[in-house]
Amino acid sequence: MTRRVAVAGASGYAGGELLRLLLGHPEFEIGAVTAGANAGSTLGEHQPHLPALADRVLAETTPESLAGHDVVFLALPHGQSAAIARELPEDVLIVDCGADFRLADPQAWAEFYGGEHAGTWPYGLPELPGQREVLRGARRIAVPGCYPTAATLALMPAFAAGLAEPEVVVVAASGTSGAGKSPKPHLLGSEVMGSASAYGVGGVHRHTPEMEQNLSAVAGTRVSVSFTPVLAPMSRGILATCTAPARPGVTAAALREAYQAAVKDEPFLRLLPEGSWPATAMTLGANTAVMQVALDERVNRIVAVIAIDNLTKGTAGGAIQSANLALGLPEELGLPTTGVAP
Amino acid sequence: MTRRVAVAGASGYAGGELLRLLLGHPEFEIGAVTAGANAGSTLGEHQPHLPALADRVLAETTPESLAGHDVVFLALPHGQSAAIARELPEDVLIVDCGADFRLADPQAWAEFYGGEHAGTWPYGLPELPGQREVLRGARRIAVPGCYPTAATLALMPAFAAGLAEPEVVVVAASGTSGAGKSPKPHLLGSEVMGSASAYGVGGVHRHTPEMEQNLSAVAGTRVSVSFTPVLAPMSRGILATCTAPARPGVTAAALREAYQAAVKDEPFLRLLPEGSWPATAMTLGANTAVMQVALDERVNRIVAVIAIDNLTKGTAGGAIQSANLALGLPEELGLPTTGVAP
Amino acid sequence: MTRRVAVAGASGYAGGELLRLLLGHPEFEIGAVTAGANAGSTLGEHQPHLPALADRVLAETTPESLAGHDVVFLALPHGQSAAIARELPEDVLIVDCGADFRLADPQAWAEFYGGEHAGTWPYGLPELPGQREVLRGARRIAVPGCYPTAATLALMPAFAAGLAEPEVVVVAASGTSGAGKSPKPHLLGSEVMGSASAYGVGGVHRHTPEMEQNLSAVAGTRVSVSFTPVLAPMSRGILATCTAPARPGVTAAALREAYQAAVKDEPFLRLLPEGSWPATAMTLGANTAVMQVALDERVNRIVAVIAIDNLTKGTAGGAIQSANLALGLPEELGLPTTGVAP
Amino acid sequence: MTRRVAVAGASGYAGGELLRLLLGHPEFEIGAVTAGANAGSTLGEHQPHLPALADRVLAETTPESLAGHDVVFLALPHGQSAAIARELPEDVLIVDCGADFRLADPQAWAEFYGGEHAGTWPYGLPELPGQREVLRGARRIAVPGCYPTAATLALMPAFAAGLAEPEVVVVAASGTSGAGKSPKPHLLGSEVMGSASAYGVGGVHRHTPEMEQNLSAVAGTRVSVSFTPVLAPMSRGILATCTAPARPGVTAAALREAYQAAVKDEPFLRLLPEGSWPATAMTLGANTAVMQVALDERVNRIVAVIAIDNLTKGTAGGAIQSANLALGLPEELGLPTTGVAP
Repeated sequence: MTRRVAVAGASGYAGGELLRLLLGHPEFEIGAVTAGANAGSTLGEHQPHLPALADRVLAETTPESLAGHDVVFLALPHGQSAAIARELPEDVLIVDCGADFRLADPQAWAEFYGGEHAGTWPYGLPELPGQREVLRGARRIAVPGCYPTAATLALMPAFAAGLAEPEVVVVAASGTSGAGKSPKPHLLGSEVMGSASAYGVGGVHRHTPEMEQNLSAVAGTRVSVSFTPVLAPMSRGILATCTAPARPGVTAAALREAYQAAVKDEPFLRLLPEGSWPATAMTLGANTAVMQVALDERVNRIVAVIAIDNLTKGTAGGAIQSANLALGLPEELGLPTTGVAP
Repeated sequence: MTRRVAVAGASGYAGGELLRLLLGHPEFEIGAVTAGANAGSTLGEHQPHLPALADRVLAETTPESLAGHDVVFLALPHGQSAAIARELPEDVLIVDCGADFRLADPQAWAEFYGGEHAGTWPYGLPELPGQREVLRGARRIAVPGCYPTAATLALMPAFAAGLAEPEVVVVAASGTSGAGKSPKPHLLGSEVMGSASAYGVGGVHRHTPEMEQNLSAVAGTRVSVSFTPVLAPMSRGILATCTAPARPGVTAAALREAYQAAVKDEPFLRLLPEGSWPATAMTLGANTAVMQVALDERVNRIVAVIAIDNLTKGTAGGAIQSANLALGLPEELGLPTTGVAP
Repeated sequence: MTRRVAVAGASGYAGGELLRLLLGHPEFEIGAVTAGANAGSTLGEHQPHLPALADRVLAETTPESLAGHDVVFLALPHGQSAAIARELPEDVLIVDCGADFRLADPQAWAEFYGGEHAGTWPYGLPELPGQREVLRGARRIAVPGCYPTAATLALMPAFAAGLAEPEVVVVAASGTSGAGKSPKPHLLGSEVMGSASAYGVGGVHRHTPEMEQNLSAVAGTRVSVSFTPVLAPMSRGILATCTAPARPGVTAAALREAYQAAVKDEPFLRLLPEGSWPATAMTLGANTAVMQVALDERVNRIVAVIAIDNLTKGTAGGAIQSANLALGLPEELGLPTTGVAP
Repeated sequence: MTRRVAVAGASGYAGGELLRLLLGHPEFEIGAVTAGANAGSTLGEHQPHLPALADRVLAETTPESLAGHDVVFLALPHGQSAAIARELPEDVLIVDCGADFRLADPQAWAEFYGGEHAGTWPYGLPELPGQREVLRGARRIAVPGCYPTAATLALMPAFAAGLAEPEVVVVAASGTSGAGKSPKPHLLGSEVMGSASAYGVGGVHRHTPEMEQNLSAVAGTRVSVSFTPVLAPMSRGILATCTAPARPGVTAAALREAYQAAVKDEPFLRLLPEGSWPATAMTLGANTAVMQVALDERVNRIVAVIAIDNLTKGTAGGAIQSANLALGLPEELGLPTTGVAP
């Protein structure tokens, strides 16, 4: 039984990646593709790497254009999802790649996003303890942010095993596609090529409370996160360096064991052999997260490094992984674990 | 009185940057240019961006070829400087861009570099408190490592003002030129373009004890550093995110004041206006360090971000800055503060 | 009936791309993976983007290690294929990604490659007129070079329709993976990022006679090619600008018609809508060739621009496409037409 | 006698490069800096690599704000220069980096730019035969386009020596800064990194008639140019491959001699040693043009390759070079010949 799928925001980067993956998914059939300002033009103008869909005309993003599908993926600017979701039947699976329904804490929402909190949907990170149960059969899913996906997966094994103190420092380099397709001067190729830059410094990036929410749930105690994002001269990929003080008595062997145990049955988590370190090229276009961990014994600190593709595991791949679970399909269905390199 | 200057290691990246800057220095005349395996070839083959020196033939790096100069810059692999320095007169200014004489602590040397400690020379970071006095008239100078230059300058104001707790976390993205010109598979363009990767994780990078040495001296207490380097897809530049817990009662205003005071009389340090954040493109080819700082009040952490050109302020420019001081020349002489952008 | 497939040269870029595509091919099972100097190490060390094969140990490339397979893909340095092919049974399909068997003219071989001409195998460019018949059932296939693939496909429609004069000028920008994985100074990331450079100028690039061979066969007359390759700061992709004088009376409409007709039934050729121009990002990881053509009426010249992924359609994808034909499988089997972008 | 200089369009890329070079020019003092939409903001917001000018406030570009200077550099969108020039005194040196006054032929202007032809000013390419005489004392200068600078310099020696037939083919890869700082989707870093793309194909690029004008003047006969520009994933630099059929009897030796003679007394032209080929990195930030030439004897074609920095020799450096001549200053004054590499 093929599911009919709509993609809202199909002319952007997250929308394009959803379509790329959906084209390779054996159980999904692409129905409506919609956009805001780009409605009326063809997908070929915006996603020329998807020839199979080149002639599809973008409809306007409205409840009407999204009606009549089994699954609706939303890749919209923040604040637009709730209005659309209200108009769609409850048994339609809505997978929101935006932030609107990620945070459980209305105060955190108010502080970092402002405005009214739309609510909370089941959080689409199946690797979180117990989360697969939550996602199975769900009809509303909030896809995690790209940075929180990286930071959570990188430190989850340490916190789950009780090895880390709850003061986390995360510095993550991201490719520019994470900033979207809306043209801004600082995102011009001339500006970003050959240059690394900081932004959102000092704990103000909106993904910070989401990291705290996830790691606190894993740790069973309040975890604080100091997060600094860096814009790196590449289109795709996040390389996150995630550190936390080690709890007293933690050994390198215990740390490695915890990580090995954590990835053992996970289809999309890889722990590299000792001595190897993640590069984002290992994951380009793939739904995998590649990790390594070390105990810096001199300063008694856990350092976990993780690479993901921000558009795949960090957005569209993660969205489809959760949708697979919600629909009772095999979790890995249609999701590549092979990257494109060099 | 023009000084005659030799550059050892002139076919590499640090050597090339020394020559580029020396060509624009009004008081230095370029004498011998020497190399190891590349001896006998012309500079034009290795530094085609320096047409004025294209026909210079590289001599072999020996005490003899370096004799007869007022200043000798060494841009050699670790471990070669001591033997050469021994053979040169004491009144020749020797500026070593390598690590041999940077560390004061033989144990730190043994732990991170191995082998015998060559000794300690005056440390070429004029911005360190009191260091200009040390450098004036010096005839032996150890140029700081590129990462320690960045991390030290970024956190020095906080520690000098007593605002930071001594547990530092540094994550720094570097361009590939920091890894040198010796061809290795992981440094191929095909590998690094479009990819960020980690290396030297877990406190094992050799620049770690140098950061601790500098910051401890500034703080007047032992500062520990957790340092993770990241290889970014760009040729030049370091963007370092440097964080430390704020001491109780520190305010954002006090922090900013401390940084303003620290850069006020410094010719090569810039604090950006509030709301702006460093990008390495701001410093390409320039001897400047561009900084910004924030207090993350949620987690009570100081986050300082700094951009430098790893080859200029991080190596060759820093070397010439210290040489200027040693020779009694104006510190800024011949050193660009204007970057090349975009 | 799954075919057992060996890949020789599996630690290089062409070998890695063959494996990436073979992992997604429903009729091929990966058997031996072999290498030269890297024999004995695991694939995970060389192709970390292929987790499914990470633990495979590279055997030495010998007739013995390659025996017992239905298909053998050779991704070896020039000059090694003949000796291996001689030792394998005649009914094994050997697909050579190297140059040894591409040229029919021994004199062209002598002039551009030197040494003895190994012979000529069926040429693996199915889009050439009549070539599918040649490839069906073949057991030896010479995969075209990456540049000749691009230039031939770009100008074939013009020559097949008798619209172009036989003096061709090709200038093609290639990503660095075309130069292989063997570390050389001029291929370092520090050298190639931010820089475009020429090489093999003046008609000396080895792919020149191959372009002439192909276009002459299409045109039915001797076509000469002036070819200049350019190294561009990107890992993958070829963007080739291919021009030839228009024959008298050619119109823009006739030219466009010829190209439309040429791509109509071709699964991997795309002609963009008028006003759009190829970008290599459109084809990253895909087996497609994206084209556009214009008649410059002021100078009466045909200008065809084509983008391919040099490792996919330009090497490994082209190899599998021909292998599919040789084995009686659907030509498109296992070959992506969707690119990875941005 | 220091000249007071204004820069109109100071927030753009050409304006920023003018300011960068003017800061290093001993005879120019920077007066007014003006902009269009960015008027009222500080230069530091737009040109953060120029700390010396960070606090300068951008005035609106008007004849009034530009009055009272000895030299006015215009880096404005096409069509705005004439109106401003009319309002400034005749003895003010106006150097226009735009296209308005480059073409002598009103018909070529009409065909490629449309609208009314503003007129023709002395053309600021001093290397053209006799052009230095034209520029000395001039008070209006039209700075050449970046591509025409490259193509003209590359083929001028061949045409001046009567070695080339007048049917030229130029394919040039340019960095993205040539497309300016106005944010457009196809210039986003996510789009351009890792990708080469064509645009303006088929003889429609506006720089085509300018190349023809220059080369025709040198050749003394009508030269036609087929020009294709390529956008390469780098911020700066043009690498142009410029070819023309060799006239009967031309030898490689004669060709090389012609190029050696042409560059011998030119301060900014370099002919590389045989066997070396230009890379744009050789010229980054420098006012040099680096060339190489070959005779492809198989097809009897001259292939000249040239690298320039599109913003330096291709725009701002060329502008200052001509201004130096106009003002009776040494032509090389304030213009770097040393590039920044790697």
